Amino acid sequence: MPPLRNIRMTLAYDGTDFHGWQAQPGLRTVQGVVNEAVRRICRHPLTVHGAGRTDAGVHALGQTANFETDSDIPPAKLFLAIGHRLPPDVALVELSEAPPDFHASRSAAAKLYRYRIHNHASRPVETLSQRYAAHVWHALDVERMRAAAAAWIGRHDFAGLASAGNPRPDTNRTVFSIEVAPRDREVVVEVAGDGFLYNQVRNMVGTLIEIGRGHWPVERAAEIIAARDRRLAGPTAPALGLTLCRVRY
Amino acid sequence: MPPLRNIRMTLAYDGTDFHGWQAQPGLRTVQGVVNEAVRRICRHPLTVHGAGRTDAGVHALGQTANFETDSDIPPAKLFLAIGHRLPPDVALVELSEAPPDFHASRSAAAKLYRYRIHNHASRPVETLSQRYAAHVWHALDVERMRAAAAAWIGRHDFAGLASAGNPRPDTNRTVFSIEVAPRDREVVVEVAGDGFLYNQVRNMVGTLIEIGRGHWPVERAAEIIAARDRRLAGPTAPALGLTLCRVRY
Repeated sequence: MPPLRNIRMTLAYDGTDFHGWQAQPGLRTVQGVVNEAVRRICRHPLTVHGAGRTDAGVHALGQTANFETDSDIPPAKLFLAIGHRLPPDVALVELSEAPPDFHASRSAAAKLYRYRIHNHASRPVETLSQRYAAHVWHALDVERMRAAAAAWIGRHDFAGLASAGNPRPDTNRTVFSIEVAPRDREVVVEVAGDGFLYNQVRNMVGTLIEIGRGHWPVERAAEIIAARDRRLAGPTAPALGLTLCRVRY
Repeated sequence: MPPLRNIRMTLAYDGTDFHGWQAQPGLRTVQGVVNEAVRRICRHPLTVHGAGRTDAGVHALGQTANFETDSDIPPAKLFLAIGHRLPPDVALVELSEAPPDFHASRSAAAKLYRYRIHNHASRPVETLSQRYAAHVWHALDVERMRAAAAAWIGRHDFAGLASAGNPRPDTNRTVFSIEVAPRDREVVVEVAGDGFLYNQVRNMVGTLIEIGRGHWPVERAAEIIAARDRRLAGPTAPALGLTLCRVRY
């Protein structure tokens, strides 16, 4: 029997109508619909592994996934065939042959998430972003948010920023960068790291919003890390503002 | 009795879940939900007049509307109160006092529409634009589209580009400009004119797509005008790609 081929895919999706990435019986999930499309084309049971298990309502522009197959369909044909089998809210952006040891999740070196905050009195629909941006009408002070975020750069124990249900025993992670940028009527937060705890990015953003609107002092960001106490952090920012933009290997 | 105040509004909406602008009994329309919100705040019967009667599925970033009221609520309060009464897919962007003779439709000097075409093998969802861009996978030649569009600039009889059901007896209109621009994976067509016949912009875009993909010669654009024959023009491009961006007075 020839060795199985390893296929790597880049996927984009609008998370609004999905119960997240991870396949769950009876629920519409991204992994579920991608599994089904790939199985129909490759004609054997298989599982597509994703780099990040995005939650319900979270979007992706550059989710990466891989699967093993004994199908001999060439990549260009696989790309078209699988792409056409996907529903309109999922796009297959790239597909290529990968080395046998490539694994979308375990091989990942960095993930980049973007969080869009519509920061204006009127609603996100004014920029047609109501599915992709959270609405905060209190004016946000970007400089304060940047100063706070600086406390999270580097390797830290992020237990204070993980929501209950975080299954990882080791809560140390490395954050490479956090950029807070005003763009038209939005404040966009981009976070890159080697991995994230459950709801970590949304809890970071929820905390930055409280600090940015002047509700909490800038120092609160460092205190959350030192105390490892989730109760000090802000509310979890809504899922719809979050997009998994890129996974680096 | 004091004279009625005339209030001008700028509205944005995602047209996906509306049966167009114009109020129709039993259907969810933008004018219907705006009428209802304004009536509840002003507490008397009134009708909101829009600059353009966008069709089902067409979006707006800068629809302009006006209404008359005897309410004495100041503009800043009206803005907040009406804005909060609108559903999440409609935003009130601006509200101000207007001169008594201002009428959103009759006073309009120019309207600017934008049509977004996602021109790539994979789907518009890869840029989270699947609600706002039509998908054309045939490669489009922007230079051919520009050359064709040049035939429509100026004052012409656009009967050949109006869909059946156009109620206006005079089919002469002035097109000020048509820009065809590649933007990342999209081709964006922006059309400015003093007014448009029924489906005129979508029929223009449908024709430009046929010319851009090489299916028809560039000269076809001029022939449609000369012949005044709708059968020569391309199919009506889908509503979801069209957005009313701005109305000038």
